[in-house]
Amino acid sequence: MSDVLNPFGESKIENYDHLFKEFGLKPIDSLLSRLPNPHRLFRRKIIIAHRDLDKLLDAFEKNKKFAVMSGIKPSSAFHLGSKMVAEEIIYFQKEFKTQTHYSIADLESLVDNKISLEEAEKNAIDNVADLLALGLDAKKTFIYRQSQQQDVKNMAFEASNHVTNNMLKAIYGKQHTGIYFAALTQVGDILLPQLPKFTGKKIVVVPVGFDQDPHMRLTRDISKKINLIPPGSIYHKFMRNLSGGAKMSKRDPSSMLTMNDQPHVAKKKIMRSFTGGRETAEEQKNQGGRPEICMVFELANFHFVEDDKLLKEIFSTCKSGARTCGECKAQVADIVAKALESHQLKKQKLVGKAKEIVCRQNL
Amino acid sequence: MSDVLNPFGESKIENYDHLFKEFGLKPIDSLLSRLPNPHRLFRRKIIIAHRDLDKLLDAFEKNKKFAVMSGIKPSSAFHLGSKMVAEEIIYFQKEFKTQTHYSIADLESLVDNKISLEEAEKNAIDNVADLLALGLDAKKTFIYRQSQQQDVKNMAFEASNHVTNNMLKAIYGKQHTGIYFAALTQVGDILLPQLPKFTGKKIVVVPVGFDQDPHMRLTRDISKKINLIPPGSIYHKFMRNLSGGAKMSKRDPSSMLTMNDQPHVAKKKIMRSFTGGRETAEEQKNQGGRPEICMVFELANFHFVEDDKLLKEIFSTCKSGARTCGECKAQVADIVAKALESHQLKKQKLVGKAKEIVCRQNL
Repeated sequence: MSDVLNPFGESKIENYDHLFKEFGLKPIDSLLSRLPNPHRLFRRKIIIAHRDLDKLLDAFEKNKKFAVMSGIKPSSAFHLGSKMVAEEIIYFQKEFKTQTHYSIADLESLVDNKISLEEAEKNAIDNVADLLALGLDAKKTFIYRQSQQQDVKNMAFEASNHVTNNMLKAIYGKQHTGIYFAALTQVGDILLPQLPKFTGKKIVVVPVGFDQDPHMRLTRDISKKINLIPPGSIYHKFMRNLSGGAKMSKRDPSSMLTMNDQPHVAKKKIMRSFTGGRETAEEQKNQGGRPEICMVFELANFHFVEDDKLLKEIFSTCKSGARTCGECKAQVADIVAKALESHQLKKQKLVGKAKEIVCRQNL
Repeated sequence: MSDVLNPFGESKIENYDHLFKEFGLKPIDSLLSRLPNPHRLFRRKIIIAHRDLDKLLDAFEKNKKFAVMSGIKPSSAFHLGSKMVAEEIIYFQKEFKTQTHYSIADLESLVDNKISLEEAEKNAIDNVADLLALGLDAKKTFIYRQSQQQDVKNMAFEASNHVTNNMLKAIYGKQHTGIYFAALTQVGDILLPQLPKFTGKKIVVVPVGFDQDPHMRLTRDISKKINLIPPGSIYHKFMRNLSGGAKMSKRDPSSMLTMNDQPHVAKKKIMRSFTGGRETAEEQKNQGGRPEICMVFELANFHFVEDDKLLKEIFSTCKSGARTCGECKAQVADIVAKALESHQLKKQKLVGKAKEIVCRQNL
């Protein structure tokens, strides 16, 4: 793996250092060689940390049981963060033939976003169509809505016996009871694959963003108290928003992409997005661009340029000053638009199947 | 109705006066004439208060929809309090042909008593056998465990959107999150009969003890916010314990009766229980006994002497001094033992049916 393919590299990872130390996360590097056909997100060190991924790899190598799980809050269109998590579990499903679970957290969107279960069902159908279009094998995945799964909710009650209000407050801040209970329901989601009806106790790995780590720590804590295996996790870096700031957020739709964006709209967003370009064409030529801080490069790197060689070329021609931001934006915007178009075509054909999956009751 | 049949009568009711004023409960007296074949508990003013029972009677008289609901926490044997509530809904079911719901609050026993769902299932089978033996028509009743009912739990999440932590704390004191959520789940239980799948919005009356009124107020409050009809309720007085103090409590088994007590054990408990007898036989003869404070009379009045004439005779012969406590205890103990024997014989034959009902999943 070339450093060129890891342009944000060490400096960015340094920002995560305190998490490594404070919470016992481990850098993922030493495990990469054990991953079959490492996914783009691994190859490019966008997934940078883990907890107990080695236990999943041990289980895989020794032909023992293991699983991956993830989920989505059905409060909006499938955005790039959801895509990242989906690609991660799809990677495990394909390369490890692993047992896979996917929770549609409609009770969380009910209490957190005040979205009714009926409204959430519509969003969920749309989200699951994205998931299938990305390549998840629905036949080999337990996809469920929290509102239609008894055990997850029952486990939330069980979990509540093992936390104090102070613990919940320390983790989630002062929240209303429904939010705390939604967090405990997510604990239920994460522990569900270990129930006897899902082949029992085993290592389960959850792909998450760093901001989700409190859930993981809470779940690990509770898992030990109810005699289950503490779940592992892998951590990806956040995608910044198209203006180059912080994390993509649903609060500013023009600064984020979703898998539902019309290709020409996505193109426009990219043409307006933050780059690492210099003030003048002259400076750009002489000093080169700064792909390390460029959102257009980040889009290519995180999501839309699968080919490492092409990505490397974009990076080096930018660095050398041979590439202008205008050209580059146009090229990447075109790649993104084509990717969205192709995704949406696939997705269209999968809506019926998604509906069938989402509308199942009493799972 | 004779005052003699209401020996605790007004003085006792006065103790409840602040509840009437503070929370808007109404004395039930003026509605008694509208009740078909009033049950012993109504006739003897053991049920003394209500909220919106008149709305149920209106609906009944105008051939509109209505329902009754109740439930049990499956944490122990069916005690006399459970029996009282059961008899009340059975009365409505028989005399009003009403839609009837019965919740087995196994999620509440999980968080409140740390009883596992498996353990609760065993208790529930036993409890439901009692319920059937008392005469509930299972075919016409929706009996379910909270752990196996999605809507009740989903409604708890919905309900959580309409309460603050401060409200919950004011009602239930400082409790852990699971207890608060169990309370919201009970709100779900009470509102369930109003879901479209259960014939929609309607007045639902819940028989409760006075100590359950906070649940009722919380549920009424939330029902208005989610566009349902505030549930009504009827209130019975507490059965004191056999030592004559406070309420019967599971913490002191020797001072309470359960429907599982062996008849000879129940007899012994009654022979040892608190009476209104005088210090000496002489005094008893001259001044008469005090059935108003006697637990043996309370057992007869609340539960085991169905015949008003016999009850009246017990009362008046006690009052007149013609009856000694020894005789009286022996007579009532015998009645109770026979009643338990007969109940337990009926029950034995219903355990299979109870098991079938309780073990149903995904209701």
